[in-house]
Amino acid sequence: MYRFSQSVGAMQSSAVRELMKVASDPGMISFAGGMPHPDLFPVRELDEIYASLPLASKQIGFQYGPTPGYPQLLESLREYLRSKNLPVDDNDLMITTGSLQAIHLVVKVFVDAGDVVVTENPCFVGAIPVFKFYQAELRGVPMDEDGVLITELDKALYRTNPFPKLLYLTPYFHNPAGIVYGAERQRQVLNLLQKSEIVLLEDDAYGELHFEGKDKPVPMKAMAGDSLPICYTGSFSKIFGPGMRLGWLLAPRDIVRQCELAKQGMDACSSMFTQVLADAFLRQGLLEGYLKRLREAYARRAKKMLQSLETHMSDGVHWTVPRGGFYIWVQLPPSMDASKLLKKSIRKGTVFVVGKAFDPQGRKNDCFRLSFSHAPEDRIDEGIRKIAEAMRG
Amino acid sequence: MYRFSQSVGAMQSSAVRELMKVASDPGMISFAGGMPHPDLFPVRELDEIYASLPLASKQIGFQYGPTPGYPQLLESLREYLRSKNLPVDDNDLMITTGSLQAIHLVVKVFVDAGDVVVTENPCFVGAIPVFKFYQAELRGVPMDEDGVLITELDKALYRTNPFPKLLYLTPYFHNPAGIVYGAERQRQVLNLLQKSEIVLLEDDAYGELHFEGKDKPVPMKAMAGDSLPICYTGSFSKIFGPGMRLGWLLAPRDIVRQCELAKQGMDACSSMFTQVLADAFLRQGLLEGYLKRLREAYARRAKKMLQSLETHMSDGVHWTVPRGGFYIWVQLPPSMDASKLLKKSIRKGTVFVVGKAFDPQGRKNDCFRLSFSHAPEDRIDEGIRKIAEAMRG
Repeated sequence: MYRFSQSVGAMQSSAVRELMKVASDPGMISFAGGMPHPDLFPVRELDEIYASLPLASKQIGFQYGPTPGYPQLLESLREYLRSKNLPVDDNDLMITTGSLQAIHLVVKVFVDAGDVVVTENPCFVGAIPVFKFYQAELRGVPMDEDGVLITELDKALYRTNPFPKLLYLTPYFHNPAGIVYGAERQRQVLNLLQKSEIVLLEDDAYGELHFEGKDKPVPMKAMAGDSLPICYTGSFSKIFGPGMRLGWLLAPRDIVRQCELAKQGMDACSSMFTQVLADAFLRQGLLEGYLKRLREAYARRAKKMLQSLETHMSDGVHWTVPRGGFYIWVQLPPSMDASKLLKKSIRKGTVFVVGKAFDPQGRKNDCFRLSFSHAPEDRIDEGIRKIAEAMRG
Repeated sequence: MYRFSQSVGAMQSSAVRELMKVASDPGMISFAGGMPHPDLFPVRELDEIYASLPLASKQIGFQYGPTPGYPQLLESLREYLRSKNLPVDDNDLMITTGSLQAIHLVVKVFVDAGDVVVTENPCFVGAIPVFKFYQAELRGVPMDEDGVLITELDKALYRTNPFPKLLYLTPYFHNPAGIVYGAERQRQVLNLLQKSEIVLLEDDAYGELHFEGKDKPVPMKAMAGDSLPICYTGSFSKIFGPGMRLGWLLAPRDIVRQCELAKQGMDACSSMFTQVLADAFLRQGLLEGYLKRLREAYARRAKKMLQSLETHMSDGVHWTVPRGGFYIWVQLPPSMDASKLLKKSIRKGTVFVVGKAFDPQGRKNDCFRLSFSHAPEDRIDEGIRKIAEAMRG
């Protein structure tokens, strides 16, 4: 019998994925999946775009494209990122097959088996299989409502052996923690990194989904300029559609150069067809109006869920109050286990994702993630009530 | 300064990619790129498909999808593969981001740094960066017009240390060699593999592009049934469009299971939007008519190029006579170097890809690849004449 490679043992099925089978049962109220509601996709805009595409653009969409991305999209995306004060002129930009591939490429070019990657705890569950792919050791750092705890981060970066290669943060409308980093906390993180050569991988998948203008984040990549090696990733998944599989990496040129070489051996180029569509979406100025609709819809959904939590939850249960994104993070009383609660909730017809799925060590489980982005809006209250009932009985 | 991972040194820029910059000069006649001519894409069919898509399908196209692929597409693709006698019921099928990702996943789950992969020489140039990605050692086996030489293959598989993990073959309308394996040669390869646990990675990107029905290949995966661990990869790139970035892997279940886990850490899923389009293309029965058009167009282009070679080339230059696919492989007199010839040809306004780009060791260079798929049809003769002139002076 054939033998698999050594890295195969490290890859494991994500708990979230197993749960999605339960969540897809039509009778179930699901707060599990971190995906947009189908009714929120810009289908009308896409119909307009398709109708407006000249033959030559469709032919470009059918063809192979350059590994770093469709030049027209790189141009329109650069304009968009420039408007967020990101240093597009002193860095290189490349298009990736979702921002997950951008994360993958950065990990590929920096991490050897056994190298340490420092993450937040809780951590974006989709990034954990990427780190495992390269047999990285994960070191999670706890957070409060302003971001990662600086004393703990200092310990994880500089006072624990072996020293890490990479720091991975998702500071804006954190998945799953639901928080946004405060400006002071961002500065403290940047200051801490000045001491070292650790690369910061800054994942900004949700930054546009602030509910109010005053909470619009300024990325650390924009704050730091060129003083630090920051690999900034973003995504069309939350601002156009995940099915397009388009993300990007903005990073120092020599890093992007290596990521391009790696991408040549992964999928050669991202879909030109969806790149042509995304370029038209930006160029025809459709993003701003769409974002307005999205922000209103998600703010309304978040509010509904927060009200339901207030109404139904017992004392001793705490949760974050999101100012953007898709998620609320719920902290149970210390004695309570989220997996047991999930079993009871499923019997009542509601699902969510348990805390340990987001713990790099897979342990901490007195907490869980609620997603307000995808469930039918008029069933949010019923779902929260069922979880509260499951808690009590 | 930060340090890159150990594997970064092994990745190198492909010579082909550098050449594409020269080839994209509008004055240049390019026989370099292995891509379809833009006029041959099924744009009319796509317009019909888009017009016929219900809202729900568009919403599915915008959304995340399952890692192994859009269930509807897996179903229609299974039907299509069943019609080619492939063992779809006893194996698992998954959708990948181009067949390059299918190759990547198989290499990921079998190859550790330093492991040997046996390939043909010449070898598909796009696969070489995948093998380098995992620091594989490559061992190339020469071919004749019926496929890989069996005595040499036997040597490479069983009489050279260390033993290989994987055998990678592209038997049907080989890129770059332009040949198709004979049935007897296929049986000899399969017999040779019976002795061992070496996994065969069978790349069938061009199989549908036979010029005549009698040359329609029967894949080794179909011949061998379940007697051997064969990972069979295919692609929508040549039968729909490369820009869709869709391919597939048909392989034993435990192998596909591991590939799915690996894909979770790469891009989570392939574009649902292009999967919805590809599914409609198959389901609406548009493939057969489109293939008929393609086969006629490529046969006509091949014939034109062969006639020009007969007319312009001097004695001592030899070439393969393709019965399908995109390529003609040209063998120069032993003293002649393809890189020197390329330089002169570029000055005259014609480009091709030199032989050493396809040699796993990057050496053998008394040969080059001509692609007849992409150049303007009415300039094929002029391009070949220019190369012949460059050869003479």
